[in-house]
Amino acid sequence: MSTSINLAVIPGDGIGQEVVAQGLKVLTAVLPQDVKLETKQYDLGAQRWHRTGETLPEAELEELKHHDAILLGAIGDPSVPSGVLERGLLLKLRFAFDHFINLRPSKLFPNTATPLAGRPEIDFVVVREGTEGPYTGNGGSLRTGTPAEVATEVSINTAYGVERVVRDAYERANARPRKKLTLVHKNNVLVYAGHMWKNIFDKVGQEYPEVTTDYLHVDAATIFFVTQPERFDVIVTDNLFGDILTDLAAAVTGGIGLAASGNINPTGAFPSMFEPVHGSAPDIAGTGKADPTATILSVALLLRHLGYEAQAVRIEDAVSADLAERDGTFRSTDAIGDALAARVAG
Amino acid sequence: MSTSINLAVIPGDGIGQEVVAQGLKVLTAVLPQDVKLETKQYDLGAQRWHRTGETLPEAELEELKHHDAILLGAIGDPSVPSGVLERGLLLKLRFAFDHFINLRPSKLFPNTATPLAGRPEIDFVVVREGTEGPYTGNGGSLRTGTPAEVATEVSINTAYGVERVVRDAYERANARPRKKLTLVHKNNVLVYAGHMWKNIFDKVGQEYPEVTTDYLHVDAATIFFVTQPERFDVIVTDNLFGDILTDLAAAVTGGIGLAASGNINPTGAFPSMFEPVHGSAPDIAGTGKADPTATILSVALLLRHLGYEAQAVRIEDAVSADLAERDGTFRSTDAIGDALAARVAG
Ligand SMILES: CC(C)[C@H](C(=O)O)[C@@H](O)C(=O)O
Ligand SMILES: CC(C)[C@H](C(=O)O)[C@@H](O)C(=O)O
Repeated sequence: MSTSINLAVIPGDGIGQEVVAQGLKVLTAVLPQDVKLETKQYDLGAQRWHRTGETLPEAELEELKHHDAILLGAIGDPSVPSGVLERGLLLKLRFAFDHFINLRPSKLFPNTATPLAGRPEIDFVVVREGTEGPYTGNGGSLRTGTPAEVATEVSINTAYGVERVVRDAYERANARPRKKLTLVHKNNVLVYAGHMWKNIFDKVGQEYPEVTTDYLHVDAATIFFVTQPERFDVIVTDNLFGDILTDLAAAVTGGIGLAASGNINPTGAFPSMFEPVHGSAPDIAGTGKADPTATILSVALLLRHLGYEAQAVRIEDAVSADLAERDGTFRSTDAIGDALAARVAG
Repeated sequence: MSTSINLAVIPGDGIGQEVVAQGLKVLTAVLPQDVKLETKQYDLGAQRWHRTGETLPEAELEELKHHDAILLGAIGDPSVPSGVLERGLLLKLRFAFDHFINLRPSKLFPNTATPLAGRPEIDFVVVREGTEGPYTGNGGSLRTGTPAEVATEVSINTAYGVERVVRDAYERANARPRKKLTLVHKNNVLVYAGHMWKNIFDKVGQEYPEVTTDYLHVDAATIFFVTQPERFDVIVTDNLFGDILTDLAAAVTGGIGLAASGNINPTGAFPSMFEPVHGSAPDIAGTGKADPTATILSVALLLRHLGYEAQAVRIEDAVSADLAERDGTFRSTDAIGDALAARVAG
């Protein structure tokens, strides 16, 4: 825990700007007086791309390296071809900064709407691998656009990459009261990657005798997400399965407006990056309808990562308390930010 | 529509035997007197593998070719290493017989338990590609079992393979009252395969001006499956995304005990294969607890494929009526089969 935080801010596209503003508001309110917060905004995303054709120039990538952490709003706009900003900016950051832990907690807060009948207890965390799998950009297209086109996507998985994320997940499971870890993959079909994941999962597990483990195929896991989400404690999974499962998890725990995430490099070699799971939602950008809570909860993850545990908890408690008192009347992005800032400052 | 049906039956593992018996019972009951049903059982699955080491010998594959259709129970047992039977038997059949349409209807029947609050109207069909994507078995492992292992899985997608499944999905959408088709992929990350899918989807769409289309990333699709499943009519998607989405679809429409599927080769070059979406459920095998309804609904798909539309509808109506009258008291596998056989014969 340092006495200064040098934060890079990438508001990005759509509602990104609005939610990040609230995140910073709450961050400022919760930090102790003697912690010096410096922020620098980076103009990256759709507008920049339209203006200059750039997604993330090397010079800015280099600059970003020298921050303690990154707060990101959202990336993506319908005016930009699908994949350009995702691959050229968001995934470029995750890969360049070796964010091998994509941490996504899922909790059904009191008084929030879930589509599930009976309101099961939900409190799990998905540890999604962040630097491998089908996300490596490895693949190609032959005879593009012709009736003879062949397009491939290669999922790359290394023992190095799998072991480090699996180990991190065991550590997290071991630190939680239930101490339960579920591996999700599809090793009955993706036998090469799947067996490697399972073997490493079993091997590392020997070092954590107190952690109960199980394995689920990704298709079966989606069933339990809706029929029995209370069975999960910590889940570790591959980059793509983690992407899919965490959107589903967000949906069952009251929606994407509450889902926080951290792209973490636990070694500290590069800055970690915190972002809401939701996208840029261009349809509601500028209307004040965006819920900044997911961003504010991402700020809590950021604080925890930087060693400000008490402040992280303060934000999470404020969100719980705030949700418990919400009565369904509309509150703007700004109003929610104000309410949470007031609570954490209190 | 022929006046004889030459059916291959692969009961397989776990509850496979039990549910297939009920499927055949209902099939026999629904068929007109003058249709000659010949069935031949094939002993394939875990027991066979333990006994002989074989999953699907060439001679039997050749024999299977000469049937009008295949009815399959379930494949897989914990005593067999994951992937052996899936790849060596189930997927081998799907690939050898070029089952490029993996058809999975999802309907929330009256009086069935859904985990979703508010019981939305659900009636959609997933057209899952069945012969490409990450299911091709293309991949490998280097330095297996060492800390330097690299495992790959290659998703292979061809314009040939994508166009035929997309076209089939447009045909199905066009024939339904709502005429709506949704493409699900992840073209912001899997840009090579994803863009090819999207381009072909858009191109073929020009031939179906009455079909309304949209596109969803697979992660977002899972959200709508639980928050707004009524928005879907026909969905077309890749092999792996289809696998994941149809388990989720089964879960929200009352469980895997009701989910039917057809592995279809619409050209008729090879026999199509019909199977419940559920697995072998070894934990309840032999207890009489397995619900044969998914298999019986798969028999309806089989009949429709062979041209027995009236009989297919008769089974589907019987299932609807039977579910509407179920009162929650336990009925054995056999009892459900008897009840449905009685209804369709009536
Ligand atoms: C925008 C997209 C590239 C990204 C992903 O697939 O990882 C998003 O869906 C997420 O989950 O953070
Ligand atoms: C058993 C497995 C190989 C299969 C698949 O992944 O296709 C199953 O999950 C299914 O959906 O039919």
